[in-house]
Amino acid sequence: MEKGLFEGAIAVLYPDGNIDLITSELESESAKKAAVNIKIYKNNDDLKIILKNIISSNKSIGINFKKFLYKDFLQIKKQFISSKFFDISESIDMIRLIKDEIEIKLIKKACRISDKAMEKIPQILHENMYEYELAAEINYLMQKNGADKPAFDTISSFGKNTAEPHYTHGDTKLKRNDLVLCDFGACFKKYNSDITRTFIFGKANENQKNMYKIVLEANTIGRNMIKSGLKAGEIHKAVNSFINKSEFKGRFIHSTGHSLGLSVHDGSERIGFNSELILKKNMIFTIEPGVYIPGLGGVRIEDDVLIKSNGAEILTKSNRNLIEI
Amino acid sequence: MEKGLFEGAIAVLYPDGNIDLITSELESESAKKAAVNIKIYKNNDDLKIILKNIISSNKSIGINFKKFLYKDFLQIKKQFISSKFFDISESIDMIRLIKDEIEIKLIKKACRISDKAMEKIPQILHENMYEYELAAEINYLMQKNGADKPAFDTISSFGKNTAEPHYTHGDTKLKRNDLVLCDFGACFKKYNSDITRTFIFGKANENQKNMYKIVLEANTIGRNMIKSGLKAGEIHKAVNSFINKSEFKGRFIHSTGHSLGLSVHDGSERIGFNSELILKKNMIFTIEPGVYIPGLGGVRIEDDVLIKSNGAEILTKSNRNLIEI
Repeated sequence: MEKGLFEGAIAVLYPDGNIDLITSELESESAKKAAVNIKIYKNNDDLKIILKNIISSNKSIGINFKKFLYKDFLQIKKQFISSKFFDISESIDMIRLIKDEIEIKLIKKACRISDKAMEKIPQILHENMYEYELAAEINYLMQKNGADKPAFDTISSFGKNTAEPHYTHGDTKLKRNDLVLCDFGACFKKYNSDITRTFIFGKANENQKNMYKIVLEANTIGRNMIKSGLKAGEIHKAVNSFINKSEFKGRFIHSTGHSLGLSVHDGSERIGFNSELILKKNMIFTIEPGVYIPGLGGVRIEDDVLIKSNGAEILTKSNRNLIEI
Repeated sequence: MEKGLFEGAIAVLYPDGNIDLITSELESESAKKAAVNIKIYKNNDDLKIILKNIISSNKSIGINFKKFLYKDFLQIKKQFISSKFFDISESIDMIRLIKDEIEIKLIKKACRISDKAMEKIPQILHENMYEYELAAEINYLMQKNGADKPAFDTISSFGKNTAEPHYTHGDTKLKRNDLVLCDFGACFKKYNSDITRTFIFGKANENQKNMYKIVLEANTIGRNMIKSGLKAGEIHKAVNSFINKSEFKGRFIHSTGHSLGLSVHDGSERIGFNSELILKKNMIFTIEPGVYIPGLGGVRIEDDVLIKSNGAEILTKSNRNLIEI
């Protein structure tokens, strides 16, 4: 219901594959481009009448519980008082996990856009640059290369800020020998990429070199291992146990990856300890091990991989070796 | 629950003003900067235990129904089986409507950033430029001027695309005598601005001039009228009836404005026909009348205004007169 395309819209899916998109007058011009039946409402009362007409009241109604706000659910429930509601979020997640040809093409394009931006970063970095300036440059590069927008808040952290996995960017200035962690993605026709590289703005010291080496090896383990038929959790266990056998035991504090698609964390599937999901052909996941030492810094290397019947295709191609600038 | 700061976090507010922020390990470094009690969880089971410990099970629990996903609500309900739940979304919206000094300062800064970008647009426009290129330039300008990110998907539409109020940008090329509609905002330390200006890339024809004149006058009516004590709906009625008395009857197809703050559409308050809200000092609203003719084009002029005890302060200051480029 935020500002944006199809704000306040409802899509009604029928068992025969038909879709009604009930959308406001504001979106009618854009909606007409979609290959669905469009119904336009002028106001909330109008919306209720349209809904009433297309959904007969005694049916079971499936709703995406994960994305539906509670307030909106109460409104629907009030309107269809004799209907039964059931949760279709798991089914929607499962459908979204497996990408079709068009989706794969769009995600590949999103990956190429973010690769292009990543490859320019070593030339962009300069002493005393602000983190937010680097974010502006990255986003600009992606959009000039055709991204609709950044896939999420671009992370461009310097020095000890790199130790915070979800820090985005602030007004910290770049200093010699800082770690520079860049985690961003392009959104291209609604589909997203998600890539992370970590640079050294200067010469890496022994500790930085070791962190980098371990994380790169963990990333390689994940990339080499991922394939159709494997349980997602197995990958996290392997990656995590590799890091925990190193001097950076306990410093890998998130899951190894997540599904990628229409949203950056597509569905709720992660490559984590409890991931029971059996990987299948045409799923797209990130592989993003990291090591974080509060007060010192962090390293993360993230790639997007398309699962094939035999192995996987790595969609993000930017150089993974340590770059000292 | 999307990627971003405080993903999967829960804030528990107590009647005495205390706040517990239950957040994941991933956010712990960032969370420590907030002036609240931080409780860190490692996984979902951990989160449940913490919640159980700090909320005794027989209490009434207020929840923001408007922002809580139904699935998450079901989880909380299952955990606190003997608790009563009530909706606090209206109270949260009301609190958010009235801005304090710090909030006003941040929104003013966000407005200055978007003004700076808007003022550069006439120099940036060039024939055959793509809409998405203009969006990239606008976002870059805002971020170089300190915006954390665009407040929403930047709208930079050319020609007949300007007739779609919520079109963002595509690969349409700029042609001589096109209308150019730019609607964007800066997000600065979580607070947003929202400004729209419409330019002519060439010489305006009579119809374009008339559209512009009517919309500018409608914008002025709204800006001059808004003040503490007035019912919000009265502003929309005046603006709408002014446009409907012109040759553009029926071409103003959205509300006159919305509250602005932590989100771009802050709370659910709009300046529309059914707005019963009595405006109060330190509320911030947009005033954004527009006229849209499908197939031809549209004009919208949008400003952000801070309501004072007597009248209002216009926070967006970019030139409002017709600019022919």
